[in-house]
Amino acid sequence: MRMQPDRLTALAADLIARRGAPPDHARLQADLLVEAELRGLPSHGLQRLPLLLSRLDKGLADPRARGTATWRRRAFLAIDGGRGLGPVVMMAAMGSLRGVLAETGLAVAAIRNANHIGMLAYYADAAARDGLIAIVMSTSEALVHPFGGTQALLGTNPVAIGIPTGEDPFVLDLATSIVSMGKINHHALGGMPIPEGWAVDGAGRPTTDPRAARGGAIAPFGGAKGYGLGLAIELLVAALSGSDVAPDVHGTLDDVHEAGKGDLLVLIDPAAAAPGVRPLAAYLHRLRRSTPLRPESPVAVPGDGARARRAAALETGIDLPQPLFDQLMALQAA
Amino acid sequence: MRMQPDRLTALAADLIARRGAPPDHARLQADLLVEAELRGLPSHGLQRLPLLLSRLDKGLADPRARGTATWRRRAFLAIDGGRGLGPVVMMAAMGSLRGVLAETGLAVAAIRNANHIGMLAYYADAAARDGLIAIVMSTSEALVHPFGGTQALLGTNPVAIGIPTGEDPFVLDLATSIVSMGKINHHALGGMPIPEGWAVDGAGRPTTDPRAARGGAIAPFGGAKGYGLGLAIELLVAALSGSDVAPDVHGTLDDVHEAGKGDLLVLIDPAAAAPGVRPLAAYLHRLRRSTPLRPESPVAVPGDGARARRAAALETGIDLPQPLFDQLMALQAA
Repeated sequence: MRMQPDRLTALAADLIARRGAPPDHARLQADLLVEAELRGLPSHGLQRLPLLLSRLDKGLADPRARGTATWRRRAFLAIDGGRGLGPVVMMAAMGSLRGVLAETGLAVAAIRNANHIGMLAYYADAAARDGLIAIVMSTSEALVHPFGGTQALLGTNPVAIGIPTGEDPFVLDLATSIVSMGKINHHALGGMPIPEGWAVDGAGRPTTDPRAARGGAIAPFGGAKGYGLGLAIELLVAALSGSDVAPDVHGTLDDVHEAGKGDLLVLIDPAAAAPGVRPLAAYLHRLRRSTPLRPESPVAVPGDGARARRAAALETGIDLPQPLFDQLMALQAA
Repeated sequence: MRMQPDRLTALAADLIARRGAPPDHARLQADLLVEAELRGLPSHGLQRLPLLLSRLDKGLADPRARGTATWRRRAFLAIDGGRGLGPVVMMAAMGSLRGVLAETGLAVAAIRNANHIGMLAYYADAAARDGLIAIVMSTSEALVHPFGGTQALLGTNPVAIGIPTGEDPFVLDLATSIVSMGKINHHALGGMPIPEGWAVDGAGRPTTDPRAARGGAIAPFGGAKGYGLGLAIELLVAALSGSDVAPDVHGTLDDVHEAGKGDLLVLIDPAAAAPGVRPLAAYLHRLRRSTPLRPESPVAVPGDGARARRAAALETGIDLPQPLFDQLMALQAA
């Protein structure tokens, strides 16, 4: 079912507001979900809404909370999210950090007890459009096995980096798993095997059966290096926010537990740099213009694909799967 | 030729000191190179010394410089390395950052115009042993092609992350290239083909010939994700330090140009975190004890391998290739 983004945002915001969220909180959470749809990341889009509404209904998410922030040092903000909506707590943190950048040049917010913050690119993009560098990290339930291992002991541990370039911002957003569980579910629904190397089953054996993979563990991306990066994110987030480590994390995929994962937001003011920095956009254009391996696939810069998909979806609307559309309609009618 | 590490450090320090370095600068630079040998990273070891000595002889490296540091903001230090030795400028930066952590909780040094800082794990390990979290990034000559591209337009852009755990520190150190140029040279010397996917030749064609790869470009690790990470490091370093971007960088592989790359050092005091952080060592032990894919290859944590190699080499000595040993002896006799 093809829908206009504005209509979907209004629908989602209404459903959230009906559960006690102030209009700005409801609007922000809805905007995050619809932006994920626009950028071609439906795993972080409206399919997350029914679970979120259930968490609001059960008191696992507090629609009014913005988090309790404590400046532990001049550039270090510790935040107890108070079960708040992820994007509400994150954007409040971003506002607080911005307030000290003129003095400190960079600052970090370490967040625990907030709900799922969704697509990390949302925050990296917002900061970079505002002239700031952002580094965002988050943890999750244990879904990823160590390199050379077989048990799900790490989160998918995404990192996003937003950098102003003088033109469109550079926006990198990657999970440190080789693939998302959403994509494995997609293969299972379509009856398609998954490539070798993506996952092991519940007994720790390599598998190409997506249903078996769901009970097992996903591989880290990039072998030992990607594992190392994902583990570093796991440790950085836990060490600075006091969040749980993956085997103990719950609450972003269920409506039973509090959200035990953590989030980090680092903001850096590039205006703090010494004079002499050259604009980055020219270098990025040089990359895009460079000779591709396959003529039909030009070299891209992180953020290009999402930007193009967003522009197209603003024209054509968002194509929601019928079951999700029906579910949203039923929620609206409830 | 097997040599005791102390003897190699003394030899290297003497060669550097003879070119005008104060004893502590010479000792630090020598220690960095020998530590790389001990940890099994000879590409960043003593084979770098002859080039460094030539750079000192030609005035491209200033043995006395420690860098000129300017606090642009309370937590943002801009450093002109003044052609100083990489580890001298880096350790001076670390000392300066430490001085503000009690006030700010985290701080960054953005460095340009310093010589090669070598193995990044050296700094991450030093900080973590001191109870601090460190994130280190550096850029290099253009050696890596974009994902889907064919031209060398990015540096190998390593990142290291050191985190105290309550026991041995977590020390991750990875280049964002799939392999080092040193390893490709090693294949060329041994007449061995390189695996598919490592490199393209000078005409941009995929190659398994290591000699052809030397005139071409190395792939990023981990496909599009590793490319994105390497590019983010390229941009972060340039945006904050004012260093050149890869196609314009020279001076870490030659003795003709000033060093145009840049370096970032972020220090974070984990004591700034809110109370309630649990020790990380127990989680890392759980990873190590988890079921491996192959019984003969237990799951490791980044830093484990380097630590084991170092312990062994302290017992057995460092095995230098004969040509390098001869070259060092000739330099000593000169």
